Amino acid sequence: MKSAFQTVALIGKYMNPETREQVIALARFLGERQVGVFIEEKTAQHSSIKGYTTLQMNAIGAYADLAIVLGGDGTMLTVARALVDYKIPLVGVNRGRFGFLTDINSDHMLESVAAILDGVFDTEQRILLEACIERDGTTVGQGYALNDVVVNKNGLARLIELEIHIDGHFVQKQRSDGLIVATPTGTTAYSLSAGGPILYPTLDAIALVPICPHTLSNRPIAISSASEVLIQVVHAEDASVHLDGQMKMALQPGDRVRVKRAKNTITLLHPPEHNHFDVLREKLHWG
Amino acid sequence: MKSAFQTVALIGKYMNPETREQVIALARFLGERQVGVFIEEKTAQHSSIKGYTTLQMNAIGAYADLAIVLGGDGTMLTVARALVDYKIPLVGVNRGRFGFLTDINSDHMLESVAAILDGVFDTEQRILLEACIERDGTTVGQGYALNDVVVNKNGLARLIELEIHIDGHFVQKQRSDGLIVATPTGTTAYSLSAGGPILYPTLDAIALVPICPHTLSNRPIAISSASEVLIQVVHAEDASVHLDGQMKMALQPGDRVRVKRAKNTITLLHPPEHNHFDVLREKLHWG
Amino acid sequence: MKSAFQTVALIGKYMNPETREQVIALARFLGERQVGVFIEEKTAQHSSIKGYTTLQMNAIGAYADLAIVLGGDGTMLTVARALVDYKIPLVGVNRGRFGFLTDINSDHMLESVAAILDGVFDTEQRILLEACIERDGTTVGQGYALNDVVVNKNGLARLIELEIHIDGHFVQKQRSDGLIVATPTGTTAYSLSAGGPILYPTLDAIALVPICPHTLSNRPIAISSASEVLIQVVHAEDASVHLDGQMKMALQPGDRVRVKRAKNTITLLHPPEHNHFDVLREKLHWG
Amino acid sequence: MKSAFQTVALIGKYMNPETREQVIALARFLGERQVGVFIEEKTAQHSSIKGYTTLQMNAIGAYADLAIVLGGDGTMLTVARALVDYKIPLVGVNRGRFGFLTDINSDHMLESVAAILDGVFDTEQRILLEACIERDGTTVGQGYALNDVVVNKNGLARLIELEIHIDGHFVQKQRSDGLIVATPTGTTAYSLSAGGPILYPTLDAIALVPICPHTLSNRPIAISSASEVLIQVVHAEDASVHLDGQMKMALQPGDRVRVKRAKNTITLLHPPEHNHFDVLREKLHWG
Repeated sequence: MKSAFQTVALIGKYMNPETREQVIALARFLGERQVGVFIEEKTAQHSSIKGYTTLQMNAIGAYADLAIVLGGDGTMLTVARALVDYKIPLVGVNRGRFGFLTDINSDHMLESVAAILDGVFDTEQRILLEACIERDGTTVGQGYALNDVVVNKNGLARLIELEIHIDGHFVQKQRSDGLIVATPTGTTAYSLSAGGPILYPTLDAIALVPICPHTLSNRPIAISSASEVLIQVVHAEDASVHLDGQMKMALQPGDRVRVKRAKNTITLLHPPEHNHFDVLREKLHWG
Repeated sequence: MKSAFQTVALIGKYMNPETREQVIALARFLGERQVGVFIEEKTAQHSSIKGYTTLQMNAIGAYADLAIVLGGDGTMLTVARALVDYKIPLVGVNRGRFGFLTDINSDHMLESVAAILDGVFDTEQRILLEACIERDGTTVGQGYALNDVVVNKNGLARLIELEIHIDGHFVQKQRSDGLIVATPTGTTAYSLSAGGPILYPTLDAIALVPICPHTLSNRPIAISSASEVLIQVVHAEDASVHLDGQMKMALQPGDRVRVKRAKNTITLLHPPEHNHFDVLREKLHWG
Repeated sequence: MKSAFQTVALIGKYMNPETREQVIALARFLGERQVGVFIEEKTAQHSSIKGYTTLQMNAIGAYADLAIVLGGDGTMLTVARALVDYKIPLVGVNRGRFGFLTDINSDHMLESVAAILDGVFDTEQRILLEACIERDGTTVGQGYALNDVVVNKNGLARLIELEIHIDGHFVQKQRSDGLIVATPTGTTAYSLSAGGPILYPTLDAIALVPICPHTLSNRPIAISSASEVLIQVVHAEDASVHLDGQMKMALQPGDRVRVKRAKNTITLLHPPEHNHFDVLREKLHWG
Repeated sequence: MKSAFQTVALIGKYMNPETREQVIALARFLGERQVGVFIEEKTAQHSSIKGYTTLQMNAIGAYADLAIVLGGDGTMLTVARALVDYKIPLVGVNRGRFGFLTDINSDHMLESVAAILDGVFDTEQRILLEACIERDGTTVGQGYALNDVVVNKNGLARLIELEIHIDGHFVQKQRSDGLIVATPTGTTAYSLSAGGPILYPTLDAIALVPICPHTLSNRPIAISSASEVLIQVVHAEDASVHLDGQMKMALQPGDRVRVKRAKNTITLLHPPEHNHFDVLREKLHWG
């Protein structure tokens, strides 16, 4: 049977011996199936894998038909941000217990990948956020987030004061530890710890979740993912903005963080038996 | 200037002298504007208003071009459920402080209505839920809700055990005081007291909010409003289902409550300056 | 070695075959240790155990030196309320997974009881609440609670309005689903589901926890266990008061529920290695 | 009538013209009552008040019979920490809306102070916390807190991992944004924003409140104020400890923060009509 994908890229971030073996096993397996194999450049370097074509992340986006990501949800976040402007779908393989984003268990990795090559999978589109940081009328930073954009005080500050607008309408001035703008994907991450709701992954919505708000009636809000959120730092001794908790930038009073849905979505492939409620039940220890 | 509406129905539930005066003032004002006036039958009876055509609620839906509702959010809920299967838009006039659904203040009622007759308004579609109660394979009850469908234990019971399915997928067994399924409109009502998020009124979503769940990681979930929620009463000494807190029906173990978006929406007319975040800020004492 | 206790009463509520065997095994074991055995009357009847002195609960309080309770936390609550006015200490044996109150696992029941007879145990005092229901100036009901006194609406009512006084000071009018007054023991039960804090078992405090309060800034409060709480039902279509979720009484508008610490405490015996934080970590799946 | 206090110290932190006038008015009023007046040294300097004895904070503790603090709750926190090891009672005067700690309104300041000089007041003891920061077996920092000791991540870190012991017993490893240890006084401050309970001011308890904990069942705990809490920083890119949000110190992995009740309490004087529930109702907008 011919593979649904001509070329597959292998990306693994944390280069311990186990990941190296997985990459090698996958590369060999794909080769036997007559599928072209690319190994992400740094993955190949760190794990000293030779004999395969290596590509930088951008080139993977441009030339591969599928990316298999080995690691945890954290790795998946990094890869998703890097590849969102390409059409390449992603599959996540998790060592140990499965994640919210990486739903193929490494214990039966080859069977699961075989099924995907056979075209047996579901596809799911996940939105990302794009954040622009504006200072004195100029954009001084920009980036994507698959989970969340967080504007918060640093630990040494007492609190932050933010002014929030949605689609140009003033919403509120908020004194708090910060504000999370989360995609549905991000609502099972930091947002959940801050008391936010769980949004179903494909819901056309984003959640605004205040972190320890001074006003007790300040509650999480879900709005259309087509809306634009503007967060202005009114007052803060020391504030910053975070994308997926992985990229960060210091903010100054007066800075504005403009958050909107990224133009493109990322495509996740799931085994057909995958159901988000099963994942929630397992990860959150329901029942 | 010709009115944007040929005929207007006046509906007021709590028949105190003040409402009577408002209905009479509105009827006279509409007459002067050459607009046909209908008065809802019970409204006319309870307040002894004579000289106008009276209509039952169904006939209002069929024959009037606009319904002006005098009362609070509670009256609006009742009227919305009664008129959802007609195309007639609704306007709410509130005595005293404005509500989430009734945003015209009675203090400047005539000016506001004049503007609406002049065609100066925004329209907003709000979804309702339809709940079907099934027992032994038969539908034993059905109804609409603009705010929420609540399945809960009665006070004398210790707790309720519910099994929840969404679009046919098992989600969880939940031991709690009950479960709220709320429309966006309903997320500022009972759902908010139970810890639910605020959903923007026009978001295509519904919220599932557990009431005092036994499992602490049972958190509010927002799903597509196109999804169907099935709630089965596994165990309960004494349970019931409520629609907008206004209609209720006792449940037995084994009963299933099937909740989905109603086929039709209700249309609310708002003054152009109306903004939902202003309402939230005022009603929830933000800032 | 002489037993620290001359006579031991055995109490088991849910009379399945397994409990019967445990009672018999314990009775035999105590007999071998020259300890006098009483079996609670209903326990003996329901499980057809013969050949031992049977006593009613009151007589157990009066004549036995120790009561061993076989069952879950629910059984322990019932026994504690019945024996609080006696000096007899309690030990709880749990079938299956251990409870908050029953910390001896039935798998090594005899070793654990042997240690207790040898005097190897810690003692812990737990407070109970006493609730008096007053109507038209007369006390119409009274009872104890080891976990909580709950005043709540019944399921068919929309909400309840309560006026709360502490030590004669007006605290607030509260519209909600109800109010929980919990002992420290009760803070890991229903109170926790309603968002209440965990109070360490021997803290001289009680928690007032509103259930789904209308006002979002209505938060749980902990006050001295020496304080008296007065809850007046201002408005309710249908309300009731519950003691430990096991005894209940219907309330009428105007009724007052007066809650204070019971004069006597109950004494729990624990294995020396028992630590409440271990129990919390296990039962709440921390880490 | 002879004053209940021979000497009174005046302390005002934020030296705007209005405070200057208040200090002068109070000093004159006290002089007329034959009460000795001390003005805190910096207060006198910043507001250029001459003709009165000025004292450093320590000397005020040693020589004055009463301290009147002009400012908000923040000023009161600073003064309380400085004077806890002296016996001097404190009275707080608040400009504008009253605070949790400063309950004399500046609008009727002289009448209120007159009543206090006449001996018409209630006294209330409030506990403080003492925090010791230990690194490699050595105490590297120490301080008091009237509100709270907070160990948290800095904004640029993703999370912090803490190991918590109470009275030598392991409680849990916690991944979160941080942990608040709050006195009853502090439970209406930052702790409340983080979801903590309100502890009555004189309750012999302290609250441990996790900030955005990773594990959803990690809930606020109240323990005896006689207990010692040990917080070890297991892992943190960047962490710090805060006392009342006013003093701070950077922490390193391995550092331990030992928190216990300070040896001495602070005495607050209140007008006799003062009731904490009235303050809560007002400040939290109940009802």
